Amino acid sequence: MNMDDLVLVSIDDHVVEPADMFERHLPEAYRDQAPKVVLVDGVEQWTFQGVKAGSAGLNAVVSWPKEDWGFEPAAYAEMRPGAHDVDERVRDMNRNGVLASMCFASFAGFASSFFYEAPDKDLSTFMLSAYNDWHIDDFAASHPGRFIPMALLPVWDSEGMVAEAKRVASKGCRSISMPELPHTMGLPSFHNLDYWGPLFEACVDENIVLNMHIGQGFNAIKQPPEAGVDDLMILATQVSVFCAQELLWGGPFKQYPGLKVALSEGGIGWIPFYLDRCDRHYKNQTWIGHDFGGKLPSEVFREHALACFITDPTALKVRHDIGMDIIAWECDYPHSDCIWPDAPETLYKEMVDAGCTDGEMDQITWSNVARFFDYDPFQHIPKEQATVGALRAQATDVDTSIRSRTEWKKLAEAQAQATN
Amino acid sequence: MNMDDLVLVSIDDHVVEPADMFERHLPEAYRDQAPKVVLVDGVEQWTFQGVKAGSAGLNAVVSWPKEDWGFEPAAYAEMRPGAHDVDERVRDMNRNGVLASMCFASFAGFASSFFYEAPDKDLSTFMLSAYNDWHIDDFAASHPGRFIPMALLPVWDSEGMVAEAKRVASKGCRSISMPELPHTMGLPSFHNLDYWGPLFEACVDENIVLNMHIGQGFNAIKQPPEAGVDDLMILATQVSVFCAQELLWGGPFKQYPGLKVALSEGGIGWIPFYLDRCDRHYKNQTWIGHDFGGKLPSEVFREHALACFITDPTALKVRHDIGMDIIAWECDYPHSDCIWPDAPETLYKEMVDAGCTDGEMDQITWSNVARFFDYDPFQHIPKEQATVGALRAQATDVDTSIRSRTEWKKLAEAQAQATN
Repeated sequence: MNMDDLVLVSIDDHVVEPADMFERHLPEAYRDQAPKVVLVDGVEQWTFQGVKAGSAGLNAVVSWPKEDWGFEPAAYAEMRPGAHDVDERVRDMNRNGVLASMCFASFAGFASSFFYEAPDKDLSTFMLSAYNDWHIDDFAASHPGRFIPMALLPVWDSEGMVAEAKRVASKGCRSISMPELPHTMGLPSFHNLDYWGPLFEACVDENIVLNMHIGQGFNAIKQPPEAGVDDLMILATQVSVFCAQELLWGGPFKQYPGLKVALSEGGIGWIPFYLDRCDRHYKNQTWIGHDFGGKLPSEVFREHALACFITDPTALKVRHDIGMDIIAWECDYPHSDCIWPDAPETLYKEMVDAGCTDGEMDQITWSNVARFFDYDPFQHIPKEQATVGALRAQATDVDTSIRSRTEWKKLAEAQAQATN
Repeated sequence: MNMDDLVLVSIDDHVVEPADMFERHLPEAYRDQAPKVVLVDGVEQWTFQGVKAGSAGLNAVVSWPKEDWGFEPAAYAEMRPGAHDVDERVRDMNRNGVLASMCFASFAGFASSFFYEAPDKDLSTFMLSAYNDWHIDDFAASHPGRFIPMALLPVWDSEGMVAEAKRVASKGCRSISMPELPHTMGLPSFHNLDYWGPLFEACVDENIVLNMHIGQGFNAIKQPPEAGVDDLMILATQVSVFCAQELLWGGPFKQYPGLKVALSEGGIGWIPFYLDRCDRHYKNQTWIGHDFGGKLPSEVFREHALACFITDPTALKVRHDIGMDIIAWECDYPHSDCIWPDAPETLYKEMVDAGCTDGEMDQITWSNVARFFDYDPFQHIPKEQATVGALRAQATDVDTSIRSRTEWKKLAEAQAQATN
């Protein structure tokens, strides 16, 4: 297989929600109460019931020079438009040879934290549904076959989660963004199946995948006061292991055989070490009396989990010890770890260096995702038009120049003037 | 190389300190104030200034049936004698083909926690020195060439640590048991080089290795209330990554080029994933401005660290991505993870399955340790008498039967009666 023949489906990207997202999804009477964008020092900030959230610059750095990277909030106009404009996003996906993308929320949080923090939870639930309607009906539906839609849930309400999960499933959305470690945000942990069990059951019934993105659970690590910003970036994937541990050794994977969990941006290199250790623990510490239904913990993990990587060169060498069925790929556009516009080059080289066969490349780049998410990548776009080569051929006019925040802003202002 | 030709040096075992350990190492006037063993429900417990510590059963389970394993305290008489009796220990090492062993403390803690908790720190420092004298002059010296001595330090006293480190070094002890994450026990973190710097400098000057054992820093993980005992056992190695992060990205490895750190019982499988991630972070997040002196973080890590494993089958397949110079082996006798009396069988199979060459087997089993700890394994015992085969030939009378706690106790009582 040549690089141009790859079909790339990324199960972890991010959308910066446009300011007008709620307009078409709320009855007139509710529009005033919806989350709103206000300008704070020229930078957009979402506000709702006193809760505020902006967009950190580091989360939309794609095509910025490195000296502009950082944690300060960024204005929409300073970002590459593909961060928030879906048509521009698809052009950028074409340029990067990416057929389809699953996008996590930005201001709303990976685990609906923006809505969770707001005091009037009935209103939060209502707005969260409108948020999902925007993501599914506007954003993802705008370019058929290019997005795997993903919903948020009212994580503060055990029954409300079930209702919203079923509602979005009926609209064709079978992927949900979840906390990786709910106890770190003051919710019951995944050990508590009175709380989470009804949702897990609904997910099994409706064939929904739960996606646990790194970052949400980071404060499960008690850091020293002097810890640098590197820790958050380097160690966040360690928290995926805590999440896996809770799901595998707590109740969820044992009690809900059909439950499917994708570990997002956690990488894959920790998996063989973790599974070797789990199996050894299970065989050695038999006095604890764990029962995985006659299977090894590693087997049960592989029945439930899918993991994805951006770049993980050593891990690919032991892909068979990870499990070829549970490896997927992600791009992380437009975050600082993303590999736009050279994802095909990076990924192909890594797979070739590790000695992947053509079949294994297909598994990693799209077919594991297709199976796990019950998603047909070629429903709307025939395979020959879905490859890196075919998509890039449509994107020869996409400008990949590096531009500073200031230059992006000037460009946006000039374009706005030209339009008016 | 055949299994019988291996030379095994374990850099992580544990000694249960004998009740009379302080007797020969204190002036008469101090003996009353020394840590003492008292019996609590027939089980030995160390007491000192109101601080109490026993021996958890799980830490001396070797040759117990699995149904006897658990966290309850165990009496010395219930343990296999090799746990606390040095002559029996050496016989057990022979049976397991282990030439030499480095033993961590039991009641005193991996980071001198027993002495740290005691209110009168001058007295603690005094007793800690006596403890080290026992370990170096009695325990380790009792069988020349069979133990790499290891000392404790008064971790609560920046200057006192330097003095004690130099004192034990002058006695030939160049290995020290340290906290892996000092901030979790209320001490300054390793970022604080005002506090730790003088010790690091002394270690470089005296060619001392600092050993960070898993477990000490476990409460760096904020667990949910329902977390099971499995978490402590499976996730403890994740904390080694936090320790590595603090040493590599904080100041210690950058500012003390000769500093040597062994990560004890952390396994090796996390290393390639962690180092891939560190190098990627360093090359990608250049805006942070890290400077590793023109080297990659992975290179700097490998200049300073040694890691060891008990069993880590997948990791051995990517040993070259870990670094063949930084891999060592450990037995963990008499803890529940130890592989007595079949360590040679387990280790040899794992190395053969991973395709290790003879030279690589030597590196893993002894020569990396010899270099890192500046220790000549054949100083007292010629190589041909140091192999698995030669040592086992001396141990044909070692009884490896599984015996319950009760049976061990009866046996100890019968032997005591016969001696009297």
